[in-house]
This record gives sequence, structure tokens and C-alpha cells, in this order.
Amino acid sequence: MMGHMSEHHTEHLFPASVYQHRLTQAATAARNAGLDGLIFGTGAELAYLTGSWISTHERLTALIIPTDGSEPTFILPAVDRGDLALSAIPELTVAVCGWVDGDNPHDLAVKALHLAPDKHPTIGLGSSLTADHVLPLQQRIGGSTVLAATVLKELFMRKAEEEITALRNAAAAIDRVFAAVPKLLQPGRSEQDVARDLNYLILKEGHAAVDFIIVGSAANGANPHHSYSDRILKAGDVVVVDIGGTYGPNYHSDCTRTFIVGGPEEQHNPDIAAMYNVLERAQAAAVAAVKPGVTAESIDRVARNIITEAGYGEQFIHRTGHGIGLSTHEEPFIMEGNHLTLEPGMAFSIEPGIYIEGQYGARIEDIVVVTETGCETLNNQPRSLQ
Amino acid sequence: MMGHMSEHHTEHLFPASVYQHRLTQAATAARNAGLDGLIFGTGAELAYLTGSWISTHERLTALIIPTDGSEPTFILPAVDRGDLALSAIPELTVAVCGWVDGDNPHDLAVKALHLAPDKHPTIGLGSSLTADHVLPLQQRIGGSTVLAATVLKELFMRKAEEEITALRNAAAAIDRVFAAVPKLLQPGRSEQDVARDLNYLILKEGHAAVDFIIVGSAANGANPHHSYSDRILKAGDVVVVDIGGTYGPNYHSDCTRTFIVGGPEEQHNPDIAAMYNVLERAQAAAVAAVKPGVTAESIDRVARNIITEAGYGEQFIHRTGHGIGLSTHEEPFIMEGNHLTLEPGMAFSIEPGIYIEGQYGARIEDIVVVTETGCETLNNQPRSLQ
Repeated sequence: MMGHMSEHHTEHLFPASVYQHRLTQAATAARNAGLDGLIFGTGAELAYLTGSWISTHERLTALIIPTDGSEPTFILPAVDRGDLALSAIPELTVAVCGWVDGDNPHDLAVKALHLAPDKHPTIGLGSSLTADHVLPLQQRIGGSTVLAATVLKELFMRKAEEEITALRNAAAAIDRVFAAVPKLLQPGRSEQDVARDLNYLILKEGHAAVDFIIVGSAANGANPHHSYSDRILKAGDVVVVDIGGTYGPNYHSDCTRTFIVGGPEEQHNPDIAAMYNVLERAQAAAVAAVKPGVTAESIDRVARNIITEAGYGEQFIHRTGHGIGLSTHEEPFIMEGNHLTLEPGMAFSIEPGIYIEGQYGARIEDIVVVTETGCETLNNQPRSLQ
Repeated sequence: MMGHMSEHHTEHLFPASVYQHRLTQAATAARNAGLDGLIFGTGAELAYLTGSWISTHERLTALIIPTDGSEPTFILPAVDRGDLALSAIPELTVAVCGWVDGDNPHDLAVKALHLAPDKHPTIGLGSSLTADHVLPLQQRIGGSTVLAATVLKELFMRKAEEEITALRNAAAAIDRVFAAVPKLLQPGRSEQDVARDLNYLILKEGHAAVDFIIVGSAANGANPHHSYSDRILKAGDVVVVDIGGTYGPNYHSDCTRTFIVGGPEEQHNPDIAAMYNVLERAQAAAVAAVKPGVTAESIDRVARNIITEAGYGEQFIHRTGHGIGLSTHEEPFIMEGNHLTLEPGMAFSIEPGIYIEGQYGARIEDIVVVTETGCETLNNQPRSLQ
């Protein structure tokens, strides 16, 4: 095998000036933090900085950003040069260095840092670099390494206006899919039948790719990591639908609603109504609590306290949310222990859930963006049991 | 988003005793190399040791193997416990430790190594662990880290009989697809039309997934990393077809043949015939040179010397081959600078190519397995220009 198929499309790159600015911001932030350089592998961080979603398997592809003001270098296998055209790199002030089998790409990467001799440098590494690259790079760097994300948190987490627009468009697309869900959930159809329709609709509404589809009916909904099965829906079943895709400039949608097959009139169990009422209150209260200056964990606590006080604490078995952008899961994570202070531009999910093992589950998820005074909710389909 | 869709299927796990034996072999090899423990993330190495293809995004999933003889530990997000049933882990002597959001999984992983206090340990890390896990693990280990693959090379590279059988079955399946290729390559069809048929046939012949499809006609064939385009085939076009999929217990197929649209009688350019003759000789000579005791780079040289002597050296722009197994690309890499001595059981591709920029390309690829006296060629469709 020589090649690969790319899952990502880059017709919708931002203007090159956006990436050029980000490269400068990254170098500045790293220098201010005392770092001597940055090395990124492939993945979301590279895409953020250059628009490139290149994937070169085990062969090293890396963006090297010195902090001495000199030009960044993009190192890639020479046979993959054709993929540069899918990124903003040809328009950026970035030196391109193609290597061929037999070259040592780790030597090339560390050389491109322009480190002063006899220095004990500190280099920031991209989160997605794999150990087969991290260890050889560390050996050649000699000094110490930290995660680049720790010093570039501000840059990665505080979304710029063009990123918020991208997330808003992605959310609107998934909302259009949700508008069609009630009529898909008919007795006699399987979870898989519904998933197939959702797959079609996610693409039809403009996503470039389907990221994931969860259709969890009855007891399957009590497993938050269930995808879908051949289980046949019955009238009155509680069904968790959690779907997302990749939209526009590779930003992600992610939304969850909970439904009753045949409509709420088919379900008369008062326990379900009571449980769902608690969940709705918890989700709304957590969203209402989002504003600059509060911590990520405080938002988790708002949702968790309401659910715990109602007696379902043991059934809320995951964090309240996760950041979203070029990755479906990224910082900030909305969970106990995360003391991060929320700032305008941060985007994340608020998705508490209650899971009654062997019976049913429920979850409500919206993407929110922190504003100057509170937050904007990007998903706006009804949250009630439909 | 809470869940994920798995690309891998595990209906065809090997018997649990196979994985139990591999765990013991890994611990023994690591101890003999002076390591104090091993930590693997998700991916092919984990699949080799446990049959698990679990994917848990940014949340740490890790197999920890102490070398003091104590039981390995499998750490995973508690919400993903359901995926254990898709692996051999429930049947293995492995402690399972589910963690919940708010726990520190890196602490748990290092604790599971059972390191003696005040020791400066050396720990082997899995190749696919990402930097966001590698750096926190290194900090907690305190001592030094090496790539586990460097001490487990023998284990990973020398395929056991059940693995060779799996590779043989995968190769036979892709050979059946190649038997149908000549009639797919009709003038007036696009590369994409052919790719769509290949996608169907790869699955029809028993693969669980399509890994990649390359249909490189005319000048597109001169880019070894082209996948396929809307270019329309013409009679006499040279077309490189390189395809592979995932088969049975997640072993990969990977094979390349070069064709003439309409058959060789449609192509009268003597340069093409001469070039292809050189390529055929180079590929056959490299295969014939494979045997225990010779180095990986010596095989590359055999192919490269023939191509270079014929004047095409500058047009052979990549290594001669790569190992294959649970990954499509893995060690041993057949290239200059790799002094590794070949041993029975090693499986890899032999795939020289000649690329005439702007005109056409050609490549011939077979998977071979080193035997006691030479090698077995797993792909057996005709290699001539068809």
C-alpha cells in the first residue's frame, strides 16, 4: 500500500491570513511561556495552525515552530507533497521540507527548531504525536518537553469569530436533522433502520462526514456508549439519539435529544416523567450557570447537584460536557477537578444524562459558547420528551 | 457525543490461550531486556496482546504489564466497559480497572506497574500512545522510557502460524478481487467508477473493511499517493491499481498490479514495455533475495540496483516495502539504513515502482513471508502488464 484516502475535505479553508496569524500567535505564546520551540504532528492542532488534515501513517509529518522569530518548517514524506495543496501551507510563510525513505525525519525536525548549542531547551509537543515519534524527538531535543496545549490553551480554547460561526452552522445543520427524528422513530423499525436514515440526513443537511450515530432504545439507552443495534422499537420506548458530523471548515456538530416512540402520549410510566423532569432542570440550570469567570467544575456541579438531590446521582455516570471545535472532544472538559476559569469564546457541550440500568436512559445535550455575559446555546430543537 | 462507532469487528478472535501466551511472552521479553514494565495504549499492539480494538478518544485506555510476574491490568473509562466483550480480556488473567471522569488515569496506570519505591525504573511504552498520555506517564514514572516495540520486535515481527494463515487468507481474498480488475478497466469509465466497483468487490470477497483504493491512470499513476479521481480511462492508458482491506482476525491485505486499459495490445509505446520489463525483473529479484539472515536494506538494494542500472533510479522514489499484520504498515521496513536481519515469520511487501512524472507510473506489489529457506509469496495473480 502506498496511499491513503482522506476523510477530510478542505474546500472550505479559512483565508490564509487566518492561519498566518495563528502561527504568529502560537510562536508568541510559546515564547512568552519560556518555550524554545513547538513540534506538532498530524491532527486537529496541525489543522488549526495550517488547515492541513494530512495523514501519513507511520511516516513523520510535523510542523516545527521556532520561537526565535525564524520561519516555521513543515516536514513531510516527499511522496505526500501532493497533499499540501489541500492546506493553506503553500500560501504561508512556512518552509517545506520533504524527506525520503532512509532520511531521519526526527533529526530534520529538531534541526528545524534552530536551537542554540549547549542549551537545555524546553520544547512543546503536539498532543497527538505518537510515542514512536515522541521518544526519538525527546532524545534529540536533549532538554525537556511539555504539551504544547498547556501553553496554547488560550489560543485553542477561545474560539475566534470565524470558528464560532463554523460551530453555529454545524449546530444548525444537526438541528435540522433532529427536526426529522420524531417521524423516524416508528414502532416496528430497528435502531439500525433509524441509524441508516440519520446517516443519510446528516449528509443531506450539509455535513461532509458522519462522525457518530447513537440510537439507544429502552435498556440500550442506559449504556451511554451504545451505538445502535437490530433491536426493534416499540410504542412507548424511551430512545436516546446522539448524533454529530463534520461541517464546513471541519468543525463538528454534536447534539442529543431523548424521544418516546409514538410520542409522549404512548408512555405513562410516572417514573420516566419524573426522571426526565429532573434531567431537563439540571441541563437548563447548567446552561444558565455558564458565564465568564466561573470554573468548568462549577458547571458540572450545578447539573450534578440537581440530579443527586433528586436521587439519581449514581445514575449520572459521566462528566457534564467536553469542548468542541476541530475535534469532537477537546478542552475544556466540564468535570469535577477542572479548575479552569471559563472565558468568552470557549465552546463545549452541556450533556447530563440519567441511566437506569436494564430499563432506559435519557440525555440532553447542547453546544454552548461562552459570551461576555453568559452563553449562547447553538442547538435549539425542543428539549422536552417528544 | 458520548459514543463511537467501531470500525473493527472481533467475531474472529483467536482462542484466548493465544493472547494469554502472548502476554506471558511480552512480560518475559521485557524482563529479559531489563525493563520494569510495559504500558500500551489502544491500537495494533493492544489488539495483538488482547484482541481489543477499543477506541476511547482522549480518555486513557491502557494495558499495563508488570515484569515482576504479577497480573497485568487493563485500565479503561468505566463507560466503555461494554466494549470488553469484543476482546479476549474477560477470559485472560488480566485485572480490569474502570475509571470515571475526575479520576486520574495516569496515576492508576503507573500504580499498576507495581514499581519498587526509590527505583529508577525503565518502562516500555506502546508506539501509538499519544503525547497527551506519554508526557503525564513519563512524569509519574520518574525513570526512563523506551519504545516497547524495540524490545518486543521479535514478538511483533515474527508472525506465528495463526497470523501467517490470517495473512494468507487476506491475500487470497485480494487476489480474487484482482482477477476481476481487467474487465473493470474499460475506456470511458472514470477512476472513480472503477474504485466504486473495487470497494464492492473487496467487501464481497470477505473483507470486513476497505482500507484504501488507488486507481492511478496515466499521469495520476506517477503519483504513488494518488487515490482516485474523475479522470476518464482511455484505451492504452497505463493504470496502477493498489488495494487492501481488513480480513478475518483484523489482518490486512495489500497488493498492487499495473494494467493497460483494453489490454496490452492497445499500448504500443516501447518505452513503457522497456520500463515495465525492468520493474518486473526488479520485483522478482527482490522476492528471490528474501531469506533468513540477509538484511532488510539488502532487499531494497536488490530492487534499487536493477532499476538504477536501467536508468530509472530517480523515478523509484520510495522504499521497497513495509511489514504487514494487524497494521497495514509496520516493521520491518524494507529500506536503506534498516540493518535488521530477516528471520522466518517476518511478513512484508515487496513493491518497487517507477514513476514518470506527467506521463504514467507502474508498481508491482506482493506480500511475502520469510520461511526457513526463502520466502512464500502470498499474492499470486499474474504480474505482467495485463
